[in-house]
Amino acid sequence: METAEYAVTFADVQQAAERTAGLLRRTPVLPVCGIPGCADLQLSLKCENLQFGSAFKARGATNAVMSLSEQQATCGVVTHSSGNHAAALGRAALQRGIAAHIVMPRNSAGVKLQAVRQLGIQPILCEPTAAAREAAAIEVQQRTGAVLIHPFNDVRVIAGQGTAALEILQQAPEVQDLIVPVGGGGLLAGTLLAVRALRPDVRVFGAEPAWADDARRSLQSGRIEPALRTDSIADGLRTPLGTLTFPIIRGLVNEILCADEQQIVAATGHLAAHGRLISEPSGAVPLAVLQQHADIFRGRRVVLLISGGNLDDPSLIAPALTADVQSP
Amino acid sequence: METAEYAVTFADVQQAAERTAGLLRRTPVLPVCGIPGCADLQLSLKCENLQFGSAFKARGATNAVMSLSEQQATCGVVTHSSGNHAAALGRAALQRGIAAHIVMPRNSAGVKLQAVRQLGIQPILCEPTAAAREAAAIEVQQRTGAVLIHPFNDVRVIAGQGTAALEILQQAPEVQDLIVPVGGGGLLAGTLLAVRALRPDVRVFGAEPAWADDARRSLQSGRIEPALRTDSIADGLRTPLGTLTFPIIRGLVNEILCADEQQIVAATGHLAAHGRLISEPSGAVPLAVLQQHADIFRGRRVVLLISGGNLDDPSLIAPALTADVQSP
Repeated sequence: METAEYAVTFADVQQAAERTAGLLRRTPVLPVCGIPGCADLQLSLKCENLQFGSAFKARGATNAVMSLSEQQATCGVVTHSSGNHAAALGRAALQRGIAAHIVMPRNSAGVKLQAVRQLGIQPILCEPTAAAREAAAIEVQQRTGAVLIHPFNDVRVIAGQGTAALEILQQAPEVQDLIVPVGGGGLLAGTLLAVRALRPDVRVFGAEPAWADDARRSLQSGRIEPALRTDSIADGLRTPLGTLTFPIIRGLVNEILCADEQQIVAATGHLAAHGRLISEPSGAVPLAVLQQHADIFRGRRVVLLISGGNLDDPSLIAPALTADVQSP
Repeated sequence: METAEYAVTFADVQQAAERTAGLLRRTPVLPVCGIPGCADLQLSLKCENLQFGSAFKARGATNAVMSLSEQQATCGVVTHSSGNHAAALGRAALQRGIAAHIVMPRNSAGVKLQAVRQLGIQPILCEPTAAAREAAAIEVQQRTGAVLIHPFNDVRVIAGQGTAALEILQQAPEVQDLIVPVGGGGLLAGTLLAVRALRPDVRVFGAEPAWADDARRSLQSGRIEPALRTDSIADGLRTPLGTLTFPIIRGLVNEILCADEQQIVAATGHLAAHGRLISEPSGAVPLAVLQQHADIFRGRRVVLLISGGNLDDPSLIAPALTADVQSP
């Protein structure tokens, strides 16, 4: 599978790794045992919930901000995001010493609004529709001259997200299968560029909620399909693919696998009980997919990318911690 | 400060590291930001809550079991423990393929009893007194010929616990201060042997609950003082020092610092909110000590040893996850 035909290349991922060295955490890859449904395989977790801002989003945002020329950077950056990209971009802008304008839907999770406010940035609130978000961001862009950094449909962001996979291949060279969550597709696209260039033998699977199976449907139909519902508990994965991420994923992914809501909740608890890790539901979707498609992974060495830890409903992990379960 | 005069030496710690290589996790040292009361210092966490069995106890138990000669190992091992040493010894024995007899008080935490049972080992229950525990262990020892592996007052165990500090010095060579929980003193003693030999400039503090301040009192009086109460929420740290650990700690530690119960609970929540890590209260005592004695650590590069993650009361972290706090 050739990767040179895409808008983002493996060289972009390599440059992102060099550019962000020292600005990001090299998160650990932890082996884990005893998780239900995973007895017949070797399982490790790439812990991006332990990344700065508790999410992989720091990677793409930092690469994007540090990619800007002095002149581009003068007027700051702008984005729209209901999720972890918001605080990630704010943090990267602070690191560079430039302004960040963050448009967020009014109904964003309190923990995500607060993460932006605690950086000293007042989010610009808008109505919770894609149109209102984009309109608000464009208005800010025109008024301030800030550079738009899209949460996923951006070459610099996709390249930055791919740096997690570079680390996985160094930290766990024995990996055979990699399962990565897919929302807008920035993380999966960056991962695919890195893995296909360095280790074409490694299988890469996208993981999404069955209630947000737009990526799976998009690969079937050959065009970007919209989300049909927006109520999956994995709030980070409700977004459709982007025009930059879709071709990369279509060309390079092994398969998109889906998990039920109930399995996502269970997997969030399993990560707490057996891994002592706090994951948000989106971050647990790769585990849920593994548990629900166990046949595909039997006897394999599997790494799951735990994409974020911004859990705001502790009742999702409390039962797992009190149940009679074994720690790793 | 010379270390050669003690029953355990730095060479024992080095040998433990060689003996257990590949059998234990090299747990990550994670930088963490935004924790209340820690603004004026650089803070990192040595995550032994991510060790096998979710506790550093795997280190000492594995070293002890792997130290046995073939002849010694024939009849298995025995211990008494209400805590993480129980499952740690069971796991190490399974790895070597020998029997483990685990005496546990009837009132041990459910999560710790269950951790032993899930290894396929039926704990031998006894009354919850020190005398009953020791009597039961001696009875098993005499009946089976098993080797007693004490939870902390054992040369092999102390040496094994010191391997965490060896890793810290490699992973975070910039460390200036190290804060380690102290119960029976195995972890602190092993840490001191490693740090004094390699980095005598690093300050090492023992951290214990004010309600279990026997180590502090023992250093003052010059003899092993008993616990005066047994109700600290940090259940892993209620134990008095041992005859092997006390001289090492007295000779080599900078200071024993205490934390209030309320601060220990708060620190457990802070680790969940800002570190996305599940720690048991005992594992959060170093953070509580840091917060309560901030003057001592101002401007320093501090590593806290988070000793265990076997939290069985999720209500200790739930409020911190829902409060308006910033992730790292």
